[in-house]
Amino acid sequence: MDVHTFAGSPLDRAAHLRRDTDWQAAALRAPTTRMVPFWRLKPLIREGDAPRIAWLGADDLTDILDAEAAHIFLGVDESGAARYAVDVPGLSEDSPPLTQSGTFIDLRAIAPALPEGAPAILAQARSLIAWHARTAFCGACGAPTRTDEAGHLRRCTDASCDAQYFPRVDPVVIMLVYRGERCLLGRSTRFPAGFYSALAGFVEPGEAIEESVRREVLEEAGITVGAVCYHSSQPWPFPASLMIGCLAEAESDAITIDAHELDDVRWVSRDELMAALDGAPGADFSVPPPLAIARQLMTAWAKETG
Amino acid sequence: MDVHTFAGSPLDRAAHLRRDTDWQAAALRAPTTRMVPFWRLKPLIREGDAPRIAWLGADDLTDILDAEAAHIFLGVDESGAARYAVDVPGLSEDSPPLTQSGTFIDLRAIAPALPEGAPAILAQARSLIAWHARTAFCGACGAPTRTDEAGHLRRCTDASCDAQYFPRVDPVVIMLVYRGERCLLGRSTRFPAGFYSALAGFVEPGEAIEESVRREVLEEAGITVGAVCYHSSQPWPFPASLMIGCLAEAESDAITIDAHELDDVRWVSRDELMAALDGAPGADFSVPPPLAIARQLMTAWAKETG
Repeated sequence: MDVHTFAGSPLDRAAHLRRDTDWQAAALRAPTTRMVPFWRLKPLIREGDAPRIAWLGADDLTDILDAEAAHIFLGVDESGAARYAVDVPGLSEDSPPLTQSGTFIDLRAIAPALPEGAPAILAQARSLIAWHARTAFCGACGAPTRTDEAGHLRRCTDASCDAQYFPRVDPVVIMLVYRGERCLLGRSTRFPAGFYSALAGFVEPGEAIEESVRREVLEEAGITVGAVCYHSSQPWPFPASLMIGCLAEAESDAITIDAHELDDVRWVSRDELMAALDGAPGADFSVPPPLAIARQLMTAWAKETG
Repeated sequence: MDVHTFAGSPLDRAAHLRRDTDWQAAALRAPTTRMVPFWRLKPLIREGDAPRIAWLGADDLTDILDAEAAHIFLGVDESGAARYAVDVPGLSEDSPPLTQSGTFIDLRAIAPALPEGAPAILAQARSLIAWHARTAFCGACGAPTRTDEAGHLRRCTDASCDAQYFPRVDPVVIMLVYRGERCLLGRSTRFPAGFYSALAGFVEPGEAIEESVRREVLEEAGITVGAVCYHSSQPWPFPASLMIGCLAEAESDAITIDAHELDDVRWVSRDELMAALDGAPGADFSVPPPLAIARQLMTAWAKETG
C-alpha cells in the first residue's frame, strides 16, 4: 500500500481517552505532555537544517493560553505521553510571543521538509482546528457551541436544541483517466501556468465513489468513463478532505471542457507524462509534487506495464 | 461493479444548471417539472402493490409551499424535465394536506419495495434536506444562512462573514475482517437481538481509508489488521454517509471488545456465515438485509473460492 504525505501518523489516537475527563485533566498537567500551537492554521515549526514540529510543554504556554483554550487531543506517542494541538488565534501578527520557539509556517509549504510522520500529525491537528472555527455556532439553531471529548465533538449550548457536531471530513474523488497509451490531464483556472493534474471533485450526497468519478469526468471534460479502480487514499488537510484516488478507463475521446472549472483538458501520451514526471527539459507541462496523490496516480499509471 | 441500494440514480445531476438562475426560474414553472415533498425527512410515497415516489407538479404544491420554500434541484430526467425535492416541515402531523397523493414513509423501510433507481433519487434528496436543516445558521458567526445554487450551497447572510457551506458527506469505513476460513462480526449495543454485522466507523481527519479501517478494528475488537482491499461503496442517506466497503485481513485472533460501542464481537466460520445469509433455520445469528453494503461484503467473502 502507498503511504502518502499527511497519512502515516505515528500517534495512537487513543479515542477511548477522549471521554476520560480525569485522564485528560491529568495529561494537561503532566510534564511529559507536548503541545503544538497553531496560529491562523499554521503550525509552529522549529526551523533549521532539519525542520521539525516545535512541541512545547504546558508551562511554555501558560502566558498565552487562557482557561478557556481548547486543547485538541491528538493521541499518545510511543512513550504514552499525550500530544495536543492548541489554537492561539489571539496572538498579534507582528510579535507572536512564541517566536523564540519557532515560526508559524504554512503546512503545505513545510510538509516535504518535515520528518516522516510529522505531516500526518499536523494534518490531523489542522483539520480539527479549522473545523472548530467553522463550528463555533450551531447550524441548527444559531446558539454558540462548546467543545467536548477533548476537542473531537462540539455541542450546542442551547439545552432545547442539544445538537452534536462531529469533525467534518469531505470525500473527494481524484482520478487519473486513461485510454490505451494516453491519459487525461486538466488545469484548473487557479493553477500556475503550464501546470496540469488529475481531475478531481467532491463526492456529492447520494452517490457511490465510482458514480462520482464518472460524473466529475463527464462534467469537467465531457469524457465517458467505464471501469473505475480504487488505488489509494490521502488525507488532505486544506481544510479536511479525504482524497480517494482512482484509475478510470475512458470510453470516449472527444473533450468538452467545463470552462467554469477548467482552463484546459488534454490527452497526453505515456512518454509525455514520464518526461513531465522526470522534470525533463523537453517537457511542455509540469505536474504536482510528490506530496500530492495526483502525482502518485500518474506515476502508477505511467510505470505500469502492458 | 456492484450497484448498491441508494446508488444508481437515473437522474443527470446537471450541476451546471444549478447556477443558471434563469433556467431554474423557468423550470420551477414548467408543467413537465416534478417535485417530491419530504416531511420530517420522510418522502411522499404512492403506496399500493408497486410503491413509487409520489412526484407532484408545481401546481399541486401551490397551497403548501410559500415563496421562501427551498426547492432542491436534483437533476433532469431522461426527457430533460427538472426534478426537485421540497421540504414541507410545516405540515400538521395529523392532517398533512398531501395525504390524497400519498403517504410520508421512512426511506429505509420503503427502499426495498421501490423500483430501481428510486432509492438513489430519494437518498440524494434526503441527505440534502437534512443538511439544509443542520446548516440554517453559520457555524463561523451564528448569523442565518440562505440557500443558493438551487439548494446545493448555503451562504452566510452576514456580509462581513460571507462563509459558504457545501453539502456534507461523511465517509465511513465498513469492513469485513477475515482470517483464513473465519470472519469477524460484531453487534452494536443498538442492534436487535441476535443481529450481527461488519464493523464500521467514521473516517477521522488526517487518516487514509486503510488507516481508518485498521484503527476502527483495533479500537472495537482489539484485532490487528494487515492488508486492506477496497471492495465497493454505497451512499447511506441517514443522514449523509458514504460507506466505503473493504475486505480486511486480520493478523491476530484474540478479541478485546470495546464495551462502549459493541455488545459482542465474534469469529464465525464461512459455513456459519453462509447459513446466516441464507436465513437457514439452524443459523444462530441474523445478518443485515440486502440493501446494506455490509451484507454485500459478507456475501463477497463467503462465496469467494480459495
